Amino acid sequence: MNQVNIGIIGFGTVGSGTLEILINNREIIASRVGCEMVVKKIADLDITRDRGIPVPSGLLTTDAMEIIRDPSIHIVAELMGGLTDAKAFILRAMEAGKHVVTANKALLAEHGREIYGAAEKHGVSLAFEASVGGGIPVIRSLREGLSANRIKTIMGILNGTSNYILTRMSQDELPYGRAVEEAIRLGYAEDPPTLDVDGTDAAHKLAILVSIAFGRPVPFKSIYREGIDHLTPDDIRFASEFGYCLKLLAISRNLGDRVEARVHPAMVPLDHIMANVNGVYNAIYIDGDFVGPNLYYGHGAGRKPTGSAVVSDLMHLGRQIRCGVKSIIPPLAHVQPPRREFAIQPIEELRTSYYFRFSAKDRPGVLSRISGILGDNDISIYSVIQKGREVDGSVPVVMLTHEAKESSVRKALEHMEHLDVLTDKTMTIRVEASKQ
Amino acid sequence: MNQVNIGIIGFGTVGSGTLEILINNREIIASRVGCEMVVKKIADLDITRDRGIPVPSGLLTTDAMEIIRDPSIHIVAELMGGLTDAKAFILRAMEAGKHVVTANKALLAEHGREIYGAAEKHGVSLAFEASVGGGIPVIRSLREGLSANRIKTIMGILNGTSNYILTRMSQDELPYGRAVEEAIRLGYAEDPPTLDVDGTDAAHKLAILVSIAFGRPVPFKSIYREGIDHLTPDDIRFASEFGYCLKLLAISRNLGDRVEARVHPAMVPLDHIMANVNGVYNAIYIDGDFVGPNLYYGHGAGRKPTGSAVVSDLMHLGRQIRCGVKSIIPPLAHVQPPRREFAIQPIEELRTSYYFRFSAKDRPGVLSRISGILGDNDISIYSVIQKGREVDGSVPVVMLTHEAKESSVRKALEHMEHLDVLTDKTMTIRVEASKQ
Repeated sequence: MNQVNIGIIGFGTVGSGTLEILINNREIIASRVGCEMVVKKIADLDITRDRGIPVPSGLLTTDAMEIIRDPSIHIVAELMGGLTDAKAFILRAMEAGKHVVTANKALLAEHGREIYGAAEKHGVSLAFEASVGGGIPVIRSLREGLSANRIKTIMGILNGTSNYILTRMSQDELPYGRAVEEAIRLGYAEDPPTLDVDGTDAAHKLAILVSIAFGRPVPFKSIYREGIDHLTPDDIRFASEFGYCLKLLAISRNLGDRVEARVHPAMVPLDHIMANVNGVYNAIYIDGDFVGPNLYYGHGAGRKPTGSAVVSDLMHLGRQIRCGVKSIIPPLAHVQPPRREFAIQPIEELRTSYYFRFSAKDRPGVLSRISGILGDNDISIYSVIQKGREVDGSVPVVMLTHEAKESSVRKALEHMEHLDVLTDKTMTIRVEASKQ
Repeated sequence: MNQVNIGIIGFGTVGSGTLEILINNREIIASRVGCEMVVKKIADLDITRDRGIPVPSGLLTTDAMEIIRDPSIHIVAELMGGLTDAKAFILRAMEAGKHVVTANKALLAEHGREIYGAAEKHGVSLAFEASVGGGIPVIRSLREGLSANRIKTIMGILNGTSNYILTRMSQDELPYGRAVEEAIRLGYAEDPPTLDVDGTDAAHKLAILVSIAFGRPVPFKSIYREGIDHLTPDDIRFASEFGYCLKLLAISRNLGDRVEARVHPAMVPLDHIMANVNGVYNAIYIDGDFVGPNLYYGHGAGRKPTGSAVVSDLMHLGRQIRCGVKSIIPPLAHVQPPRREFAIQPIEELRTSYYFRFSAKDRPGVLSRISGILGDNDISIYSVIQKGREVDGSVPVVMLTHEAKESSVRKALEHMEHLDVLTDKTMTIRVEASKQ
């Protein structure tokens, strides 16, 4: 074997980044793999737009099936995105005995079982480093580097757009809307950035990480999701008075018979390594039973970092092909993974600490009425900040609780809706990660 | 293949951590590898001491050659440390066709070429994740996850002992000696902790990282080393006034025809992700041409994290053996690495910014005489703090420079030795990592 042939389906941002690396770093890649990695064909509906990279003539086609039918192609890189067509192409490529590399997080999160199963059935490799955390090799670390461990916790800042928005809100006290506008202007967010700020993108990535960490798929639809659009600079300021910052976290814990999996804004202690992950950076914090806490950090998106992940997967498969191996590591890193999905604990059963910001009338006895309802629901207060200053006819009463049950918190907040001393909806933010 | 057999040479801290994981996580390991990973023999001079783990009878021997001669053993884990004997056992195991896993950083740094060469000659795999950064899978990330990139920079906090000492000096203004005593008392440092605090241990690890990142060995003896024992809480306080903290950094940059490789205390901007790596934690910051900056963080030492790295290597080889492959990734991750060593740039040619703390007599004209000598040597001042308060008959004059050449700095400092207004040796610390 002196050449590994690649077909790329999808010539957008990631596809062109991938081609650029394969061209620019051709020599070093060949030296590391032990043979040339050659792009034989690229399929895209638009084959005329200039991507700013010299494309050898005859490489482009509008028909992805040309790639799948080409017997000389060893690996298909699905970089088109979307669900239906991407899935069809991946399944057909596997049927044709080709290895598959994909960056398609939505597809793996929502239809992973079918795709993992097809890879095993056809005895081909499936690699998807680019689906989570851009260029950060976190999938590889979970499948290989930490493979000796029972993973206990995963905590990720998995969406660069929302992390950029929260960073700007923190550093310059920008309101949410202005931070979003800025992110769109700078090209860090789409317009509107719905899937980024509502937690869907992070939940897709969490579903993938959880599946590999625990060796079995999770039902994506059961992952609890809450976005960042309701957060205010006030909450960020109060959080920092308590010694915390605000991040959109994707969190999973192995509970043995089921798993926590949730995406929501969370308060993180300022001295935690995750607190310094700012701007468009991503980070994944993983705690294993022997290795202890680990962190992986880097650019979570973009042409070049994502291309780096795709090419590292192509090289991994290239090395296998050169050695005559079809598949060394199965998709979920277990040779015979359990077929059943890992059930996700309903969010109502979560136990954690909470931040509350009550908007209260400036009257005596308010705190006692609030704390009375909390106490009735087994929620005990850890710390309170009561600001004397009245804003819009109300004063903020801000507190942190000890660990409490989410269902109790919801019940308490429902009761408080009838309190005439509260003037607005209560802001609730979960607190994560103990202080170090 | 339904069983992979392992022989362990060296039953100390790392050896017992390794055995503990293989016993405790046996099921999950077998499920991930696809077959049982079985320890057939453990060799150590002391086979009577209780390691706190149940050792199946008949497993222990005082003769390492029993392992090497056993034809049923596939992988030898060299966990004894030291140079001469460890090298002999590794070379003999390879001659016998066995794969080798080692945690021996000193051996790889000082005799790597011979060992890498032997692995290639005998067509066996050599894995050494545990040699750098404890349980952090940084070797795997360099060899695989970032393999599409030309690595530009590596910057590591690679020694947990010295990082613990510097963290204590920073957080509680402890003098160096007291921080060392505390580290020894808590078991974070040996007594005396010479190789940890003088930079030798970090230089060993840097040599290994550089070899993989650039695909060729470096001459270990040419790595510049400077320890932390001369640093004072005063310097840490001044650094923080300039917006920096102090870390013992291992730094390497690819200069094309040669490489920077040096270990010394360095000032790191407080908003850099490396600044929050505290206590016994390690972190490795890697910048690649496409992936951009990445960080890998975790416990850098200890029985369990180091055992986690050893077992991940054993599993990696187990997966290969199960698939009938001898070696997929060569030691330095290049199939035909250049045989010549990568030359290291002499420290005199380094260009960076510097921190100086002069101990000056409290007299007019001191600053002008100092800055005159600096100017004569092409060193320009970026910022100065002059403390009015006299301490022990002198006042500190503290400054940061723009980028300057190390040889010019040395020449300037030599000139200053003759200045009668300076009362003591000048403290010099290099500044690393631009502010983010």
